Amino acid sequence: MTSSSNSPCPKFDRVTIIGVGLLGASLGLALKQRGMAGRVVGVGRANSPSLRVALDRRAIDEAQTDAAVAVKNSDLVVLCTPVRQFPETLRAIAPALQPGTIVTDVGSTKQQVMQWAADMLPKSVHFVGSHPMAGSEKRGPESAKADLYDGALCLICTDFPLEAAAIRIVEMWTRIGMRTQVISPELHDLWVAAVSHLPHAAAFSLVNAAALVPDALPVAAGGFIDSTRVASSDVQMWTDIFLTNQNDVVAMMNRYIGVLEDLRDAIEHGEEDSIRNFLTKAKEKRDDLIRHRNAAKESKP
Amino acid sequence: MTSSSNSPCPKFDRVTIIGVGLLGASLGLALKQRGMAGRVVGVGRANSPSLRVALDRRAIDEAQTDAAVAVKNSDLVVLCTPVRQFPETLRAIAPALQPGTIVTDVGSTKQQVMQWAADMLPKSVHFVGSHPMAGSEKRGPESAKADLYDGALCLICTDFPLEAAAIRIVEMWTRIGMRTQVISPELHDLWVAAVSHLPHAAAFSLVNAAALVPDALPVAAGGFIDSTRVASSDVQMWTDIFLTNQNDVVAMMNRYIGVLEDLRDAIEHGEEDSIRNFLTKAKEKRDDLIRHRNAAKESKP
Repeated sequence: MTSSSNSPCPKFDRVTIIGVGLLGASLGLALKQRGMAGRVVGVGRANSPSLRVALDRRAIDEAQTDAAVAVKNSDLVVLCTPVRQFPETLRAIAPALQPGTIVTDVGSTKQQVMQWAADMLPKSVHFVGSHPMAGSEKRGPESAKADLYDGALCLICTDFPLEAAAIRIVEMWTRIGMRTQVISPELHDLWVAAVSHLPHAAAFSLVNAAALVPDALPVAAGGFIDSTRVASSDVQMWTDIFLTNQNDVVAMMNRYIGVLEDLRDAIEHGEEDSIRNFLTKAKEKRDDLIRHRNAAKESKP
Repeated sequence: MTSSSNSPCPKFDRVTIIGVGLLGASLGLALKQRGMAGRVVGVGRANSPSLRVALDRRAIDEAQTDAAVAVKNSDLVVLCTPVRQFPETLRAIAPALQPGTIVTDVGSTKQQVMQWAADMLPKSVHFVGSHPMAGSEKRGPESAKADLYDGALCLICTDFPLEAAAIRIVEMWTRIGMRTQVISPELHDLWVAAVSHLPHAAAFSLVNAAALVPDALPVAAGGFIDSTRVASSDVQMWTDIFLTNQNDVVAMMNRYIGVLEDLRDAIEHGEEDSIRNFLTKAKEKRDDLIRHRNAAKESKP
């Protein structure tokens, strides 16, 4: 589902962003740049410099260390911490949320998150799951930028038919430049296991496998650097993601291992045609993907 | 071994580059830009547009379709075709090479190539194996550039002690901006299996695994695109590489599969500490690698 950015979009009076790392602080910058938030409140730990950095960079207008205090009178709350902190946060803010508040998130897994929200939030509050597929191996509010989300895809999980709350969330991501697509949490978790969680598991594993050969890593060139870029991602965030999408990640890793074994067997037995067909299939699919992305970029107004 | 670019480097009178794709045409541009070649002769197929493009881009001064004719009176011959065309080429040029000619290559595997050269070239000719670790998923002389090799590493395989021919080849790659390292063909093939051939096998497999999930590929974001960049590489070139470094590639793929299985098991059993340790080890090693590369770049004159 795509929403036009020309339709009216009433702004949120008070937006609370819980977790002011790369994603949270970038969202604050983007909302403020587009005039979509009356006031942005950031929640972080008292002993971390993140709140100070987010304030200095004007990603937030106000810093809070108590989420339950921060969300009072907020009409939008966005969870931007690593996913496995969500239960604790949801439990803490539930009693303080005013009826009608919209709660969303930026987490990379959705079935588990939707379940936590259903279990812990009062019925008078609307939870809409968001997964903006933007980011970077960098982290922290010092790396935040207002255009981090620009042009990327945001997958949104909610009930059908779309409630007003879901429509406002679709509007919000669209307004800050994202393409949006509403899908079921089940399909979401399977798709991102295939195109995001598996590539991360593959990249972390590629570094650890190459490191088994003494002295080989220093000769690595651009191919290795690019193939493993996401292995420099935040460890806690990815531990959380793997643990909140266990089934789909394990299933995709098994499929990947099976595909690798096919290629390994073809190489071991010198089956030239099999190798060529395998590589051709992969190259054609990736080249297609790049062509579609480039076409989409060019057609952007 | 690193060679100073301030030492005298007599130029080659006539350089024949066999294969004027990305690597061959870029070498022609680089040699001409540095005034290191009197005349550059390119060899290609009569029915391919590559020779015309290479001439138009001034990567070569002269186009030939018969390698045996082209190498006459050349003091340097560089094999830049896919590796498995080397035997046919070496057989064709062997009778036409003048004594003292230096023959080198840009192939990604070395034990097999050194063996072919030893078997097929006359003893009066010097073969030095080169593997400039530069390139791109792009191909053809239309993508060639004079600075393709700049700042990258060139692994050089030859006998010890270094003969004059090997020293001239080290000089040549150094002059066009590469860092050089002389190692045994056995170590070369193992190292590149770990940091180049495995990442390519992993990337091709990653695309084919993700493609097993219907409709998932279009939601792929930057992580997938970077992780699979090298899966857009030339299919014939990579079929050749896998088939000329079979043992090391299969061994590294088996190690990789073992490492993936460790991570999969930790995720499947919810072993948070094991996952965190696995990711931390990979992230630290990659971050170290990036730091060293950045430091090396900064210290470059």
